[in-house]
Amino acid sequence: MPKIIKQSPIFKSKLFTINEAQIQFEKKVLNYEIIAGTGKGAVLIIPILDECVLFIKEYAAGVDDYMITLPKGKIDDNEDMYAAANRELQEEVGYKSNNIKFIQKIYLAPGYISHVTNMMTADKLEKSTLVGDEPEALEVHKIQISQINSFLKDYKIIDSRVFAAVNYLDTRYGKI
Amino acid sequence: MPKIIKQSPIFKSKLFTINEAQIQFEKKVLNYEIIAGTGKGAVLIIPILDECVLFIKEYAAGVDDYMITLPKGKIDDNEDMYAAANRELQEEVGYKSNNIKFIQKIYLAPGYISHVTNMMTADKLEKSTLVGDEPEALEVHKIQISQINSFLKDYKIIDSRVFAAVNYLDTRYGKI
Repeated sequence: MPKIIKQSPIFKSKLFTINEAQIQFEKKVLNYEIIAGTGKGAVLIIPILDECVLFIKEYAAGVDDYMITLPKGKIDDNEDMYAAANRELQEEVGYKSNNIKFIQKIYLAPGYISHVTNMMTADKLEKSTLVGDEPEALEVHKIQISQINSFLKDYKIIDSRVFAAVNYLDTRYGKI
Repeated sequence: MPKIIKQSPIFKSKLFTINEAQIQFEKKVLNYEIIAGTGKGAVLIIPILDECVLFIKEYAAGVDDYMITLPKGKIDDNEDMYAAANRELQEEVGYKSNNIKFIQKIYLAPGYISHVTNMMTADKLEKSTLVGDEPEALEVHKIQISQINSFLKDYKIIDSRVFAAVNYLDTRYGKI
């Protein structure tokens, strides 16, 4: 197993830290740059209602266009992942849940990004709204589980974590 | 559609640029931090051989552990995506291909990362090796398409782009 010999930040902002790491492999030492988030990571929630999943269409600043994603957001300092998930659900799709379950951790590009997203499911949904920091109203798409793949085909920009969610639904609900 | 009013770099390194952007929505203006790569983006290749896919197990500095991923890497300045894919195949799994096809673009977390990965398939593989910049030999796993989901279940750290690839294989090869 390679060993991190040295690691130190070369940049810090409100949202990101970039670390430079020196890593010892069996035969050589290499320098890496690693993007780390600040704080406790994120949640991504698969809200399930009437055998449908609630997706959102949201402006994505990284690509200056709209993307398809799922309710998600950072875990605040005073929250655990379940509280964060329930808050994001209420802010982004207008429901709360009494049945939120942790499924697995998702890693964006683990070779150089340390960010971790906790993928969760939420069902037994009840209408409930909280005002979040969204700059505009989000479009919510309620898609039958069996129709998800054909829904996604119509969009070009899809958060990579949606595919992890679809893969999970596939193994849980049978082939979709 | 929101409008980027102003965008300027607040950090630049060999690999990354972080931009601060001011974005005008209908009712308010918000500040964003966006992680941009340098250069021409990346490729991720699904190498298909004897109805199997060649996955790799590779050290991932972002999480200081091994991950499951697919052959991938940056597109060099003097390359197009097809040349980059064929080079990475030879460096990482020891094959070249005369039949590389572009499938779709993958976006990691498009809300704040602008990085684009070009997902491609490669079949009609022939043995051919190039020496890359890998710090240690990569473990190659040749997995039958129908067994991919059960293979992935054994690993905790999986590049999110692998799920996009599995989703593609699912729609192309029937349910896996």
